[in-house]
Amino acid sequence: MRKKALTINGVQRTVIAEQGASLGDVLRRQLHLTGTKVSCNTGHCGACSVIVDGKLTLACLTPMSKVSDGAAITTIEGIGQPGALHPLQLAMVSHGAAQCGFCTPGFVVSAKALLEKNPSPSREEVRDWFTKQHNACRCTGYKPIVDAVMDAAAVLRGEIPAEFLEYKPTADGRIWGSKYPRPSAIAKATGTLDYGQDLGLKLPPDTLQLALVQAKVSHANILAIDTSEAEQMPGVAAVLTHKDVKGRNRITGLITFPTNKGDGWDRPILCDTKVFQYGDAIAIVCADTIEQAKAAAAKVKVELEPLPAYMSAPAAMADDAIEIHPGTPNVYYGQKIAKGAETGPVMSQAAYTVEDSFYLQRQPHLTIEADMGFAYFDEEDRLTIHSKSIGLYLHHAMIAPGLGIAPEKLRMVLNPAGGTFGYKFCPTLEALVGVAAMATGRPVYLDYDYEQFITYTGKRSPFWVNLKLGADADGKLVAMESDWTVDHGPYSEFGDLLTLRGAQYIGAGYNIPNIRGQGRTVATNHAWGAPFRAYGSPQSFLASESLMDDLAEKMGLDPLELRYRNVYRPGDTTPNGQAPEVYPLPEMLERLRPLYAEAKERAARESTEQVKRGVGISVGIYGAGLDGVDGAEAWAELTKLGVTVATTWQDHGQGADIGALGTAHEALRALELDPTEISLILNDTAIAPNGGPSGGSRSQAVIGQAIKNACDNLLDALRKDDGAFRTYAEMVAEGRPLRYTGKWAATMNSNCDENGQGNPFATYMYGVFMAEVAVNTKTGKTTVEGMTVFADVGSINNRLAVDGQIYGGVAQGIGLALSEDFEDLTKHTTLRDCGIPYARDIPDRFAIHYIETSREHGPFGATGVGELPLTSPHVAIVNAIKAATGVRITHLPARPEKVLAGLRAIAGNPVAAD
Amino acid sequence: MRKKALTINGVQRTVIAEQGASLGDVLRRQLHLTGTKVSCNTGHCGACSVIVDGKLTLACLTPMSKVSDGAAITTIEGIGQPGALHPLQLAMVSHGAAQCGFCTPGFVVSAKALLEKNPSPSREEVRDWFTKQHNACRCTGYKPIVDAVMDAAAVLRGEIPAEFLEYKPTADGRIWGSKYPRPSAIAKATGTLDYGQDLGLKLPPDTLQLALVQAKVSHANILAIDTSEAEQMPGVAAVLTHKDVKGRNRITGLITFPTNKGDGWDRPILCDTKVFQYGDAIAIVCADTIEQAKAAAAKVKVELEPLPAYMSAPAAMADDAIEIHPGTPNVYYGQKIAKGAETGPVMSQAAYTVEDSFYLQRQPHLTIEADMGFAYFDEEDRLTIHSKSIGLYLHHAMIAPGLGIAPEKLRMVLNPAGGTFGYKFCPTLEALVGVAAMATGRPVYLDYDYEQFITYTGKRSPFWVNLKLGADADGKLVAMESDWTVDHGPYSEFGDLLTLRGAQYIGAGYNIPNIRGQGRTVATNHAWGAPFRAYGSPQSFLASESLMDDLAEKMGLDPLELRYRNVYRPGDTTPNGQAPEVYPLPEMLERLRPLYAEAKERAARESTEQVKRGVGISVGIYGAGLDGVDGAEAWAELTKLGVTVATTWQDHGQGADIGALGTAHEALRALELDPTEISLILNDTAIAPNGGPSGGSRSQAVIGQAIKNACDNLLDALRKDDGAFRTYAEMVAEGRPLRYTGKWAATMNSNCDENGQGNPFATYMYGVFMAEVAVNTKTGKTTVEGMTVFADVGSINNRLAVDGQIYGGVAQGIGLALSEDFEDLTKHTTLRDCGIPYARDIPDRFAIHYIETSREHGPFGATGVGELPLTSPHVAIVNAIKAATGVRITHLPARPEKVLAGLRAIAGNPVAAD
Repeated sequence: MRKKALTINGVQRTVIAEQGASLGDVLRRQLHLTGTKVSCNTGHCGACSVIVDGKLTLACLTPMSKVSDGAAITTIEGIGQPGALHPLQLAMVSHGAAQCGFCTPGFVVSAKALLEKNPSPSREEVRDWFTKQHNACRCTGYKPIVDAVMDAAAVLRGEIPAEFLEYKPTADGRIWGSKYPRPSAIAKATGTLDYGQDLGLKLPPDTLQLALVQAKVSHANILAIDTSEAEQMPGVAAVLTHKDVKGRNRITGLITFPTNKGDGWDRPILCDTKVFQYGDAIAIVCADTIEQAKAAAAKVKVELEPLPAYMSAPAAMADDAIEIHPGTPNVYYGQKIAKGAETGPVMSQAAYTVEDSFYLQRQPHLTIEADMGFAYFDEEDRLTIHSKSIGLYLHHAMIAPGLGIAPEKLRMVLNPAGGTFGYKFCPTLEALVGVAAMATGRPVYLDYDYEQFITYTGKRSPFWVNLKLGADADGKLVAMESDWTVDHGPYSEFGDLLTLRGAQYIGAGYNIPNIRGQGRTVATNHAWGAPFRAYGSPQSFLASESLMDDLAEKMGLDPLELRYRNVYRPGDTTPNGQAPEVYPLPEMLERLRPLYAEAKERAARESTEQVKRGVGISVGIYGAGLDGVDGAEAWAELTKLGVTVATTWQDHGQGADIGALGTAHEALRALELDPTEISLILNDTAIAPNGGPSGGSRSQAVIGQAIKNACDNLLDALRKDDGAFRTYAEMVAEGRPLRYTGKWAATMNSNCDENGQGNPFATYMYGVFMAEVAVNTKTGKTTVEGMTVFADVGSINNRLAVDGQIYGGVAQGIGLALSEDFEDLTKHTTLRDCGIPYARDIPDRFAIHYIETSREHGPFGATGVGELPLTSPHVAIVNAIKAATGVRITHLPARPEKVLAGLRAIAGNPVAAD
Repeated sequence: MRKKALTINGVQRTVIAEQGASLGDVLRRQLHLTGTKVSCNTGHCGACSVIVDGKLTLACLTPMSKVSDGAAITTIEGIGQPGALHPLQLAMVSHGAAQCGFCTPGFVVSAKALLEKNPSPSREEVRDWFTKQHNACRCTGYKPIVDAVMDAAAVLRGEIPAEFLEYKPTADGRIWGSKYPRPSAIAKATGTLDYGQDLGLKLPPDTLQLALVQAKVSHANILAIDTSEAEQMPGVAAVLTHKDVKGRNRITGLITFPTNKGDGWDRPILCDTKVFQYGDAIAIVCADTIEQAKAAAAKVKVELEPLPAYMSAPAAMADDAIEIHPGTPNVYYGQKIAKGAETGPVMSQAAYTVEDSFYLQRQPHLTIEADMGFAYFDEEDRLTIHSKSIGLYLHHAMIAPGLGIAPEKLRMVLNPAGGTFGYKFCPTLEALVGVAAMATGRPVYLDYDYEQFITYTGKRSPFWVNLKLGADADGKLVAMESDWTVDHGPYSEFGDLLTLRGAQYIGAGYNIPNIRGQGRTVATNHAWGAPFRAYGSPQSFLASESLMDDLAEKMGLDPLELRYRNVYRPGDTTPNGQAPEVYPLPEMLERLRPLYAEAKERAARESTEQVKRGVGISVGIYGAGLDGVDGAEAWAELTKLGVTVATTWQDHGQGADIGALGTAHEALRALELDPTEISLILNDTAIAPNGGPSGGSRSQAVIGQAIKNACDNLLDALRKDDGAFRTYAEMVAEGRPLRYTGKWAATMNSNCDENGQGNPFATYMYGVFMAEVAVNTKTGKTTVEGMTVFADVGSINNRLAVDGQIYGGVAQGIGLALSEDFEDLTKHTTLRDCGIPYARDIPDRFAIHYIETSREHGPFGATGVGELPLTSPHVAIVNAIKAATGVRITHLPARPEKVLAGLRAIAGNPVAAD
């Protein structure tokens, strides 16, 4: 232990800490300066950036022994506060640079240190700095952050007044369509928003800390679990195993597809008979401190009988493979697609056919914040579970029977979340903390370190796709034959739904009259498949959008032209036979055409023997909503202070707050409310009605309609005969109810049938991506030098939020194309090793063009946005690599060694690549 | 458990807390908003003031169930921060309104709430508000706080700019004699200074929380201690008894008086054979959480054999009283005084004699902050003990043998302390936390709740004094006969020294040629005697300054005139036969004379039958230093940033920081340093050399000399031949040492001999007090309506600090006179029940007049100040009561019922009073 006198944010403090403790831990756990976020603990994310004696420092990697006595430390709390923002913070707010916001304090601190050294950095210098300092952002694609730093620097240089950065209300007070900052922006930029880990430090003093005993193998039978030694360890309140789970001890996948051969009850809360994947939880130690819990967890003895681990779909499909879930075949679901005529004859007569096989990898979500949750019994004795759940009611239903708790005694709450990108569409630790709280009767807290988080949460499921396209002499597509295999890991939840996505998105965007295909869901022992932004579509488009380029090449047609000839026009239908609700793609391609020509010219001009440049494009489509009759509920209530709106529009950084606010404000415009007079309750099943999960870009489209309806109903109730509105006082005086429910359901839709035909979504999002890449032919490294996106997401609610979704989604597409993977359980355990893109990996030349086609079935003409930008940008990139080098990458990611192998193959010097 | 959405300091937060938990606990323990201080936990101190939905609220008394969901809470952290002070905070700084600073956040928050309701309060309205809101301050006498609120209100009203409140540097940059704010002022006014409890929340996560098993009787034999059940309780790491103490298990009183009949080894760390007083510690439970520790402490079984409890000196002196410490008589020390001739003959020839008996009560220190401490092993494996110790080296010596630790392996550190007023001249829990850290090897933390604090820390020892004065026909004192008995509680530490104070201060101020007297120290079972400001002198002056008034009355002389005739003039000596070093008292009385006449006239004019007014005066003297050859050591070191000065000038709120800074800055003036370039290390035996304890007003006088000497030595080393000074770089380049030691010792002094004769102190402080009181003859309640103080404390280092000492010391004198007591163990357990004065109890009409007689043996002519204001103000008050009503109160406090009884006695209707 060592006592040091430190000046922290200008205040002299005595700090007593272990020399080996990290500065990050000391700041957070001891001093509760929770604006400094610690997540990756490997120095890969920069969320813990602080300034020590003028030097930017990663607090997670800095042991206290390296912090000199007398050091001056600046944390985010010392840079500015709500009400007294530093220009960097103000600029972050005004540029929407804080999405989930978890990395924002680190970026602010990092930028502060940069501007102290270099008050006039160029944009590239800002990007280089953030890259060098390992400031990672998973939400924004970095552009809004760089914009913010440039503006803040101008303010600090005195070139523009700070007020220029503040939001300027419109003349009519309307915020729909504006850049009104999201309500949480200031808290995020100042480090004052309490995320789950922060709340974890602020729980009641009797909270038990949990540590898991986890499997270190991927497949095994459990012979015995001995907790006796662990129970005797200091501070241990309980050691829990499956025997302590009061319910069915299974998370139910809520299987709704009748042809699924599993029953959805395959995922144990705590393993009983078998281990199904690496990291599976076998026991929970509950102790006074986390150190005690971990020490005791190490004393739990688990006797295992190893079983063969099937780490990919082909392995699990082998003839000799045993059933991972005995009684259920490893291939447990099949999804056909059959549209139009049989394709065999059509194909044989097609002027052109192309075919190839594709693999899209197990993309990790790589949120900057890891996973955590806690539970306690509330004042009505409800088991209350706080987590990063983006499907509060969904998870409620998925875990209640396993826990053995009456539904009305279970309450789910979403903490402010540092990103999920879909992984939290699945429950992770909700049931674990539930078990612990039920067994001990005390508040319990559990968090995962980053390695635990990566290895024990769901991932994007790899697809193995074989695809064949046929076109006539004019390049009009005439048929498609598809076969796709989904490696869904050991747990079936949503696996059938994901497999259906292959039928919905392979070939989407184009009118293909005749389609035949077959997909299947396979259980393996690798990470379970969890939703990830654009769910199922990146896998689908990798095949169809790559093949479109190959088809164009074969025809000697420009890829843009081929696409232009085939994209949806009135009379066309989707692969599911649905008529699109709008037809913006031709216009997008028209408008892209000159930019594309320019880009190709630039690529040609700037290419060298060593660095070859190319341009690629892709089309992306995604339905906004859950399949079929998706619906939501909300209420709006008049209060003394304005209006409160409640529903479960779960915010995981995408901007549920501004989405709900913008929608409600627009719906309530007649009341002329200031936006601050609208309160939102979006995260608590005890208060908010069921808006459904936040996923599938459904929230703005579906929940937004419910909010609009609730607001309409409220307005109706307030409206007097003369058209004026009753005040709160008048409503109370007249004894009228103050709260009004709103509902919406997509009754115009229908689920896809066994042939994949139906009208699954009320609205779709449409996009076209153009990537400009440079490939170093010596190293094989690909750099994305420019991205151009055309997007039609309907009428735009909030421009900052929508821009941010697109920047961030495309950035994930760049990672998907070039670097991201989760395959090797021992190697892919950190942000960097999993290939997260840093600022220098995302181009500064990044343009978004909107076509705001109003949607009939979206509130005020809006639809969703979140999935669109990750549908196919990666295919634009691999198409650009092909254009630059002639190398067709079919198995992602397009790592340098693969590109090099392709280059060698072309040069007649083949080396096996994939 | 209940989840609430609270807006705390403008930031929306989710707070999950037990409904029964106090808001104060939630703010501090859960949210670590430690600017809100919680100490008394009874709503008596206001340190926990926060604003909830616009309403000033005591956080300690407010259960979370009373905090509504959605409430807006403002704590000190939300009012202003270092670098962005609210005008209230700035005004507190500039007025020196934060001394120990522990109450300051509460006052700032309270004043904020007041000014929101009433932007233009009168001074009386401010006082009434603070009184009504229970904002208690023990340091400042409230005046600087009221000054600050009035100024801040003017700033907020826009009448004066905030800059007017800022410190204006003098033309020559000198801060000596200025109102330069103390270095800790901003931290105190913003709630950012971490006191012991705050540090306790910020210790490493593996820190064990301690709970004591304490005696609930005052005297008993211990038959058995059974810890077995406690050891099995959850979270318990160890249950420690005397058997676990590695050393002698005694705190040594370091007895230096050879005639003491005890050996000083009478105070157990953990009781083994006997319980000596209520609260004595018998066992320590070490657990993960304080709740666990307390639950387990309740399970420790202690078998006791009750013994008679001697709760006062007379009881312990009774013939049949058993020895409290077997082998040592209860009367264990005697102190004679013999000056001049035998007094018997002189008395018998004196023209006038007066005599009476007096009792001064067991005054409780009533710091707003209770007691706490913690211990751990540092990087050099030193047992490091943090506490409120104001005698770091002294306590080091007192506890090391009892702990059984090598002195070089023990390190003592003072935390920022919320006042001690001397109680921490004694070790309290230092040895307890030391035992626990040694036994467990882990960091340990212990704090006392306010009741524990009051009942288990030392108190001012009551004196029973019989005194007789003789004067000649001119009113010149000719003889004094004294007899005093000191109830010192069960522990002897410093008891002999305190008894000597009777010989030094009874009759001090006057030249009394012939004195005979005898004092004695008595062990009892009431609270042990600990130093308290003005140590021994309030007891002494109660007798002599009361009798001076009685003598004047008997002679028909004005009390001021009688004093004027007798105060020290050249050629006179103190009761100890020492020649005073300066003679300011005649001038003080001369200057007081017209003010006194005015006051008497006012009293006469404003007196009514119901409210009688009167004026009283008293003289007070106190030596600055420890008896005899007091000394200190310090060092000054040139650093890159300026100069660092180190010594143990322990800051318990009196202003060690500004004392040391002002002294060093003055000593180093040739270097033209900005005050911020001087760093201070005043609180750590591992770094700072022994400056001696902070008590007896010795610090400025003695430690100040050592600092001056160290600075002189540094200057000598820096001085070049041409008179210029070497820079840091030059010193390093020339390889010269950077650190220089300074020492000082009062070699001109000598200890008092067995007759109480000697030259104990190098310098004295001199004062005259005038009190104006109003006595309600119906209720007996006395109100002090004005205080006038003349003080000679030499050259003044810092005016804010010295003013503050005097205001605060006199306020404690008002409490001593009228309300404060610690007698009833069941009743005197809270601030209010112990009689702490609130703002309305201290007059706003409060004037201080300085006579700055330069002292030869003080640095730059300064001497001490802290003890002076509590030497005799209480006697001015009881003299004023006498003047107003004719009632002479001889036994303090002068509670209404005593005054009423006196009034009845005068009216011929006596009712027993004392």
